[in-house]
Amino acid sequence: MTQGHGDDAYRYPRIAHNFSTNVSPRPDLAALKEHLSRSMHLLDSYPEPDCRRLAGLIADRHGLPAESVIVTAGATEAIYLVAQWLGRRPCASYTLACSTTFSEYEDACRMFGLGRDDHGNSPMAQSSVDTPGLDTCWLCNPNNPTGSVVSPEEVLRMAAHCRVLVVDQSYEDYTLAPMLTPAEAVGAGNIVQLHSMTKTFAVPGLRLGWMVAAPPLAAQLRMLLRPWSVNALAVEAGCWLLNHAADGVPRLPALLSEAQRLRSCLSELPGVAVLPTSTHFMLGTVASVTAGELKERLALRYGILIRDASNFSGLSPHHFRVSALSRHADDLLVEAISELLSTTPVM
Amino acid sequence: MTQGHGDDAYRYPRIAHNFSTNVSPRPDLAALKEHLSRSMHLLDSYPEPDCRRLAGLIADRHGLPAESVIVTAGATEAIYLVAQWLGRRPCASYTLACSTTFSEYEDACRMFGLGRDDHGNSPMAQSSVDTPGLDTCWLCNPNNPTGSVVSPEEVLRMAAHCRVLVVDQSYEDYTLAPMLTPAEAVGAGNIVQLHSMTKTFAVPGLRLGWMVAAPPLAAQLRMLLRPWSVNALAVEAGCWLLNHAADGVPRLPALLSEAQRLRSCLSELPGVAVLPTSTHFMLGTVASVTAGELKERLALRYGILIRDASNFSGLSPHHFRVSALSRHADDLLVEAISELLSTTPVM
Repeated sequence: MTQGHGDDAYRYPRIAHNFSTNVSPRPDLAALKEHLSRSMHLLDSYPEPDCRRLAGLIADRHGLPAESVIVTAGATEAIYLVAQWLGRRPCASYTLACSTTFSEYEDACRMFGLGRDDHGNSPMAQSSVDTPGLDTCWLCNPNNPTGSVVSPEEVLRMAAHCRVLVVDQSYEDYTLAPMLTPAEAVGAGNIVQLHSMTKTFAVPGLRLGWMVAAPPLAAQLRMLLRPWSVNALAVEAGCWLLNHAADGVPRLPALLSEAQRLRSCLSELPGVAVLPTSTHFMLGTVASVTAGELKERLALRYGILIRDASNFSGLSPHHFRVSALSRHADDLLVEAISELLSTTPVM
Repeated sequence: MTQGHGDDAYRYPRIAHNFSTNVSPRPDLAALKEHLSRSMHLLDSYPEPDCRRLAGLIADRHGLPAESVIVTAGATEAIYLVAQWLGRRPCASYTLACSTTFSEYEDACRMFGLGRDDHGNSPMAQSSVDTPGLDTCWLCNPNNPTGSVVSPEEVLRMAAHCRVLVVDQSYEDYTLAPMLTPAEAVGAGNIVQLHSMTKTFAVPGLRLGWMVAAPPLAAQLRMLLRPWSVNALAVEAGCWLLNHAADGVPRLPALLSEAQRLRSCLSELPGVAVLPTSTHFMLGTVASVTAGELKERLALRYGILIRDASNFSGLSPHHFRVSALSRHADDLLVEAISELLSTTPVM
């Protein structure tokens, strides 16, 4: 699916504060940009077809066998590769660990002919992943758009009930909750774990991600890679970031406590409710207008962009998602929504 | 397939002259690189999921409806998208217009379960595309690795015999022979025409290509696109190149006549034969050593890289491919091969 995602700031004339992306800006990217500016000779040659150098750096850092790592053009390419691999098995089917989650899993599975096992759960409830004998289960952890987190023990328990468990840890660096490590994922044997350098290092323009799986599983996935899917500047950036950038998201505890503050400020607005979150983004509802109307008015009148979350499976036209930015920007968001809701009670 | 391609200079300690790539260096890329160096803010946001702005520029330039153009991460992504689309039809099969051609068509078709129609042609002969009722036919025009060219009239005649004709014009700017225009391809109704900005503008590190098809066919292909497959710097480069760079390959007539000179110099070496070509690259054989041995020795002893072409379907271990570079570099290649063949008659 190429439409309906967040961070569509390019659609508006001027956006000053972008709450619609889950990527938190990093202060330490100036040196990366400087390095890439001096690396333009990389345009002149093909990149390594399989990003071997970068995969090796990732494997070293996480103490993994090199053959367990596959570099992809963002976690998105990994999602579609996994779905393509799953779809080669006749009658393959899938379950979503949380029925309201990133829509790309469903889109990718549909593209490759996988049917969905419906366990009749309500939106936002964990599926009955205790049901033994599940085929494939997709878990987004932390989950987009709810911000909920599942513990490593629970992830391993899920894996024991599935043929394959796909764990998308794109937001792993945006929570203080413990996460399954890449080595634990490889050790499990039937887990494919997705990672996003886009999210970790706040470089969504680059398209850079990676996945790990036990070597026999990784070998099957690698067979489906097409050559050169990752651009040479992205590969170079990945290598530079692993060698130079600090691990994790800078000042995460401050960002997460600002997220909790934003959540309580928003929750105080009339008709607005926001779910608890373990990350810096959160899912809310607004009663008197649709999220689409709210988004358009915030964008055009205040230069503020939020995510209309109504196209997530199981959500209503009134669901929106925002990420905490800074105390100042978050206050502007709360004031703008408050003003819009009070001046136009029924739009 | 992520292995066995040309331009594997990264595998050798020092390559001074790279004849293994079909991309001819352009003198006018300094301004592009300067522009990209100043565009690093693009890393901070997601690119347009479907490269709409660039697709629009391409459509305008070629007088096409915008919905007939799809931007891809290199022609390679286009090849795999087409194969994926073809594979959705039960019992789909394919033919190669020239049985010795770029191996990616076959790899992609195999990945998506298409069977090959074998018309029993000898390598390098045109297939019997006059056979009516062919399902899908892949034509590389100019053909890699032979450098042969099929006229627009012949391409349209082929299309009339197929359900779908895929024409990969990645090397279209490296020949003076007339080519089917994008508008003609769209007009034919059943042609998917692939283009490579990588090749046209000599930026293989970027991963940038596009394809055109009649809007109903393009709509089906577009359904299979995953979001953000093209990195933001590549999109920006594409827009800049369309607005600023000269059309086509600079000094093409000189490059092509240098290619003819290189071909006759190589053909004079004992045991070396080179096929006629309509582009700047050419396919040759060497009798006394394998192409793999020749490649290793040229790389390690002379810093010269050629393409071992033995992994093209239908070719022998003695086939190699080279592209003309400059009179000086080409003379070094001829001298190096001559020296290797005379000093080590049997390796």
